[in-house]
Amino acid sequence: MEEVEVAPPQAMEVRLKILFTSLCHTDVYLWEAKGQTPLFPCIFGPEAGGIVESVGEGVTDLKPGDHVLPVFTGECKECRHCESEESNMCDLLRINTDRGVMLNDGKSRFSINGQPIYHFVGTSTFSEYTVVHVGCVAKINPAAPLDKVCVLSCRISTGLGATLNVAKPKKGSTVAVFGLGAVGLAAAEGARISGASRIIGIDLNAKRFDQAKKFGVTEFVNPKDHDKPVQEVLAEMTNGGVDRSIECTGSINAMISAFECVHDGWGVAVLVGVPSKDDAFKTHPVNILNGRTIKGTFFGNYKPRSDLPSVVEKYMNKELELEKFITHEVSFSEINKAFEYMLRGDGLRCIIHMDA
Amino acid sequence: MEEVEVAPPQAMEVRLKILFTSLCHTDVYLWEAKGQTPLFPCIFGPEAGGIVESVGEGVTDLKPGDHVLPVFTGECKECRHCESEESNMCDLLRINTDRGVMLNDGKSRFSINGQPIYHFVGTSTFSEYTVVHVGCVAKINPAAPLDKVCVLSCRISTGLGATLNVAKPKKGSTVAVFGLGAVGLAAAEGARISGASRIIGIDLNAKRFDQAKKFGVTEFVNPKDHDKPVQEVLAEMTNGGVDRSIECTGSINAMISAFECVHDGWGVAVLVGVPSKDDAFKTHPVNILNGRTIKGTFFGNYKPRSDLPSVVEKYMNKELELEKFITHEVSFSEINKAFEYMLRGDGLRCIIHMDA
Ligand SMILES: NC(=O)c1ccc[n+]([C@@H]2O[C@H](COP(=O)([O-])OP(=O)(O)OC[C@H]3O[C@@H](n4cnc5c(N)ncnc54)[C@H](O)[C@@H]3O)[C@@H](O)[C@H]2O)c1
Ligand SMILES: NC(=O)c1ccc[n+]([C@@H]2O[C@H](COP(=O)([O-])OP(=O)(O)OC[C@H]3O[C@@H](n4cnc5c(N)ncnc54)[C@H](O)[C@@H]3O)[C@@H](O)[C@H]2O)c1
Ligand SMILES: [Zn+2]
Ligand SMILES: [Zn+2]
Ligand SMILES: [Zn+2]
Ligand SMILES: [Zn+2]
Repeated sequence: MEEVEVAPPQAMEVRLKILFTSLCHTDVYLWEAKGQTPLFPCIFGPEAGGIVESVGEGVTDLKPGDHVLPVFTGECKECRHCESEESNMCDLLRINTDRGVMLNDGKSRFSINGQPIYHFVGTSTFSEYTVVHVGCVAKINPAAPLDKVCVLSCRISTGLGATLNVAKPKKGSTVAVFGLGAVGLAAAEGARISGASRIIGIDLNAKRFDQAKKFGVTEFVNPKDHDKPVQEVLAEMTNGGVDRSIECTGSINAMISAFECVHDGWGVAVLVGVPSKDDAFKTHPVNILNGRTIKGTFFGNYKPRSDLPSVVEKYMNKELELEKFITHEVSFSEINKAFEYMLRGDGLRCIIHMDA
Repeated sequence: MEEVEVAPPQAMEVRLKILFTSLCHTDVYLWEAKGQTPLFPCIFGPEAGGIVESVGEGVTDLKPGDHVLPVFTGECKECRHCESEESNMCDLLRINTDRGVMLNDGKSRFSINGQPIYHFVGTSTFSEYTVVHVGCVAKINPAAPLDKVCVLSCRISTGLGATLNVAKPKKGSTVAVFGLGAVGLAAAEGARISGASRIIGIDLNAKRFDQAKKFGVTEFVNPKDHDKPVQEVLAEMTNGGVDRSIECTGSINAMISAFECVHDGWGVAVLVGVPSKDDAFKTHPVNILNGRTIKGTFFGNYKPRSDLPSVVEKYMNKELELEKFITHEVSFSEINKAFEYMLRGDGLRCIIHMDA
């Protein structure tokens, strides 16, 4: 814990006072283990809720006092991705884990005694104040409790959107969710909201099953309990295959199983997990030809500025339950406890109160 | 050419007088070459137009005199696929190249001197009369010229539907079509109807390019002319990738290229070609994760009875052009000429006049 100087926001930037942040640490390990430079969400403080403290030149849609969620990926509203209804992978502000500096001048806004400290994934919310590009900030309903909705700025939206925006199960359908971490449980929550009649959770770790019951998961399959490939187990359980499947593991085997377990004619599989560099997705093309679909998604296809406010409203009108994702709360001075919970695989989200 | 006896239709069957049929012969070779028992469209007379001569017990939506297109795959209107908006792969009447007999009694309706002659893909239209399951018969506008719309009962609908029902390009988009045979040209026709601004045709056979100009194809790429993979050539031509691609070759290399050439964030690839038994579709999962979609389709996702009448209407109101697909016409007695044209790769569709 150190005193860091946070410079004022420059053009198209805002300085935020962070009130709550949450830990999303597993990625560091994930990415390190997979031997790639980190390219995906969630390190050094991506999930947070805060208030705009000051705005830089040219910022017109945010003003001091606005309640906001900073997001690790942005929306410039001008590039081809932002203009497309179908994409949220903004050319300018798409997650960049290598940059470490602000776009405007290629410099950091953090320093200690004049020495720069770098930004991470554009948010860096493990700090009382942070400077973020305006394109990475979603303005939300000021009545929403920031200590709850702060979890929407990363994994929960990723899993939820994978179901609601991409898999789009119809009411009464059967949905398989591979991997029951925060992303998978949020995908299950999406299936529950969609009115799925069967939600089948698949995980190699049986410890995950108990918790998953709270998220509407109705049946469990541990691939380790079976001699045959899990896609065959699922096909038998569902008279030919599930209607939708959502892969939230990062394991290439799960990706292939998630695809091959969907029903022919109409089945849709959605890939969310971040694979390893050398993985290959491999299937017989007839599996595709027989009317199946595979889609990939990033941040649940939500455009941060345009779409997150409406996700917050889903929580406000009690359609979406967030409390069950929050298993621990600590003050900023106890942040190491939060890391411990995560490393033990204990609980789902730990909210860190910055001013406590 | 032989005199064949055609028995009256039994329950849920209709006997048709075939007026026009068309040759769709390449499959025989395709499938033989690939060492599989034929499982897909188009042999021994699948494309045809005719008139109902008599109907069997229980047939209520067809009567003698109705103008119809028999189709190699059917729609029972009762199974889960028929009830799903998303599938046309009817459980009861999905193409079956092995059956050779009618469902009702497991017998053939064709015979010569009491010896049975088998049916093929449920249509067997190389005959003046044929008996077909009512689920494989689309009733169409009697004002439609059967010598033109008969081509809609197989490949043309397959390619057209792959674009209109599955790829669904927006107006102004860029569409790549792999393979410029009848299926690919029909896919290009779909792209033209959708208002695509660029239609890029890819074929290993440069002879196909001239004809393709008539179908709205604006640019051509022969993979043989390039040292790098064709997906890279296409990405360079299109600032990162095409909006939609439709694979109509049956080649696994083309399937992978067709997927990898679509733009990240929103690109959709549709597979139509029938692969070989031992092919493997292989790609890096990050290609999927980055917001791309792969879909497969059978008969262009058209449900034969529910949807073909409206495709005929598209021709009637001049939205869809069919004349350009018809390059030859012969009388039934000259059917061997039609086979020759096909084997030479000469022309696209040869209409055979049964009563000429
Ligand atoms: N696409 C995106 O925008 C995005 C955003 C955030 C996270 N992610 C990715 O989503 C994935 C899940 O994140 P999380 O935080 O929920 O992770 P997590 O580690 O908490 O949970 C993953 C679960 O998958 C299980 N699992 C692993 N391999 C399996 C297999 N073969 N079959 C069945 N279960 C298996 C594990 O036991 C674990 O319970 C990660 O790969 C993460 O990088 C993607
Ligand atoms: N899914 C369905 O419902 C359905 C229905 C009918 C036909 N089909 C299939 O559609 C495919 C096309 O049928 P068609 O009658 O138009 O065939 P065709 O043989 O007339 O045309 C195929 C074209 O693809 C080209 N080609 C082959 N390999 C290529 C490659 N690697 N790159 C680029 N071009 C390549 C060939 O040169 C040829 O011009 C076949 O596989 C057929 O079995 C599928
Ligand atoms: Zn996160
Ligand atoms: Zn943008
Ligand atoms: Zn055909
Ligand atoms: Zn059916």
